[in-house]
Amino acid sequence: MKLSIERGALLKAVSQAQSVVERRNTIPILANVLIEAEGDQAQFRATDLDIEVVDKAPAKVERAGATTVSAVTLHEIVRKLPDGALVTLSDDMTSGRLTVEAGRSHFSLATLPKEDFPVMASSEYSSNYTIPAPVLRRLFDKSKFAISTEETRYYLNGVYLHVADADGAQVLRCVATDGHRLARIDAGLPTGAEGMPGVIVPRKTVGELRKLLDDDEMEIAVSVSETKIRFATPDIILTSKVIDGTFPDYTRVIPTGNTRKLEVDANEFAKAVDRVATVSSERSRAVKLSLEEDRLVLSVNAPDSGAAEEELVVAYGDERLEIGFNAKYLLEIASQVDRENAVFLFNSAGDPTLMREGTDTSAVYVVMPMRV
Amino acid sequence: MKLSIERGALLKAVSQAQSVVERRNTIPILANVLIEAEGDQAQFRATDLDIEVVDKAPAKVERAGATTVSAVTLHEIVRKLPDGALVTLSDDMTSGRLTVEAGRSHFSLATLPKEDFPVMASSEYSSNYTIPAPVLRRLFDKSKFAISTEETRYYLNGVYLHVADADGAQVLRCVATDGHRLARIDAGLPTGAEGMPGVIVPRKTVGELRKLLDDDEMEIAVSVSETKIRFATPDIILTSKVIDGTFPDYTRVIPTGNTRKLEVDANEFAKAVDRVATVSSERSRAVKLSLEEDRLVLSVNAPDSGAAEEELVVAYGDERLEIGFNAKYLLEIASQVDRENAVFLFNSAGDPTLMREGTDTSAVYVVMPMRV
Repeated sequence: MKLSIERGALLKAVSQAQSVVERRNTIPILANVLIEAEGDQAQFRATDLDIEVVDKAPAKVERAGATTVSAVTLHEIVRKLPDGALVTLSDDMTSGRLTVEAGRSHFSLATLPKEDFPVMASSEYSSNYTIPAPVLRRLFDKSKFAISTEETRYYLNGVYLHVADADGAQVLRCVATDGHRLARIDAGLPTGAEGMPGVIVPRKTVGELRKLLDDDEMEIAVSVSETKIRFATPDIILTSKVIDGTFPDYTRVIPTGNTRKLEVDANEFAKAVDRVATVSSERSRAVKLSLEEDRLVLSVNAPDSGAAEEELVVAYGDERLEIGFNAKYLLEIASQVDRENAVFLFNSAGDPTLMREGTDTSAVYVVMPMRV
Repeated sequence: MKLSIERGALLKAVSQAQSVVERRNTIPILANVLIEAEGDQAQFRATDLDIEVVDKAPAKVERAGATTVSAVTLHEIVRKLPDGALVTLSDDMTSGRLTVEAGRSHFSLATLPKEDFPVMASSEYSSNYTIPAPVLRRLFDKSKFAISTEETRYYLNGVYLHVADADGAQVLRCVATDGHRLARIDAGLPTGAEGMPGVIVPRKTVGELRKLLDDDEMEIAVSVSETKIRFATPDIILTSKVIDGTFPDYTRVIPTGNTRKLEVDANEFAKAVDRVATVSSERSRAVKLSLEEDRLVLSVNAPDSGAAEEELVVAYGDERLEIGFNAKYLLEIASQVDRENAVFLFNSAGDPTLMREGTDTSAVYVVMPMRV
């Protein structure tokens, strides 16, 4: 194998590869990136056995071939090379080394046989559709904060992507929950997504996917089977196993009869919650909301360190209510609101509370109260 | 005590205080800041028993007095208040709480009695002088990287500030070393510094001092005794115990007979060292310098991961030399060079090497070689 490639293109491809690679590996080849050169392009493949990423970049291929080298070392080297450099990669069959050359820099890296690299088996995908990057970004960005980190409830360690009914129409929906809070985000159903099996996309995949979604003009090709999901752009293919479990019936958790409505400026609300939470001890970060007509008082009482109180002018017309929440959950939910006021719908101090943006029901959040 | 103070002035004063406070304290009052209000100013004092910082800020004092509250909590609250807010601090003698009010925010913080706060005993200082902030900044900034972190050699855990002879003239000098590398930085001797006792300024004090030195126009008043050092601006007084030990005779470590001279662009050199070091394993980060006429080859050979080599055009006229160094030490030293080329003076592959900027001998670095 021998190829020349522009440093910027190489850096982009290798960045994505090294981020999929796990830092601690018991299987040495999983630390490596598989480089394949053929035609007028180079392909960089990395995997942790659950996720596989394949990056393509244009290259001048002098001799076709393939080899594997440490993804982290190659990334570090390319990162430190001067911008605009032309990088030559060539493998020496006798020494078993890959030579990386750019200007007066010369590296020789240990390789492992390309035959040992575990390429993910290809699958039959039952559902294939394209979706604009900003739409996919919104679905995952607004739901991922609620992913559970409890490993025992492995079926909550991801975002549940599925087709659902909303007001009689079918939508593409992402749901995540850790039992304390829940996010439910909807988007219009893309053509071809009808009948898509519901899949739980693991947290790490959600993180890796995010890097494909920065370009507002990009269309993402999504393919889904019962066991795998694939996201593809012209240059990158990200394939991931999905979590083998059943996502709980979340619909029962979302209250439908909450009628006590609070409307508040989300930014002001978040800042006030953040301030009053300062005095609370780390463990029980409970914030009390005391509501009466058009007035909200946020308060925290931490016997050891002190107390805090802040008043906000809000729109509220129902009877007096006192309800407590974990400050972190309130902050996270309030920070999802980006266009309008936050609308909270309460029932009682013991019932789950619903939050949405203005009248928009395509992003709905549920948070469990805490006794205060 | 009752006082009103502008949020920006309060934040500045409390920031410095909370950074001196240690995060883990067995003595509760050491987590607190002592607030004293009198006349038209408020004073904020914090200590870890080795360092004491006193910040003054203009305030409208309604009722003189003093109390102590958690420095970290007060800092967090003030940081989160909106810019430009007017903050009122008032203590309630009966409840033993300090009330912090700003706009619609209201905090009540636990206090500890001001009588329990350990105010550092005042000292007689044998030496008093003023020095421009940029001069003091250079002395410490260029030497602190070489401070030892080995606690057993406690007398190396700081910068040795003393008066020394340089080419027949007296200078104010900072020296730091960890046994592997050494930095020796000189500045003109300020009037009043003659006869100053040599003191070892602890690492933490060097860090806290740095925050006083950002203003190029500021004159810093320095006072030194055998056991303490004090740095003062009109608003801040930083007092610190010095390390009770004898700094070793560093002059014997600085080679005087090194004649093999290498001159190299410091920035290019640092980047090349950084690149070739990429392939080396973390533990033995050895870089080999191979010198021949006007040519330097940097190389690293790490049997496990690979090899790297880079060539630089340099000015070198002596006989061939191969010498190895710890990559991290070379990088740190090269990054101290800010105006001119780096000039290295070698003797043999086993002897300490000297580095300076161009012909300037007011900043001199020594680095021990490594076998490669």
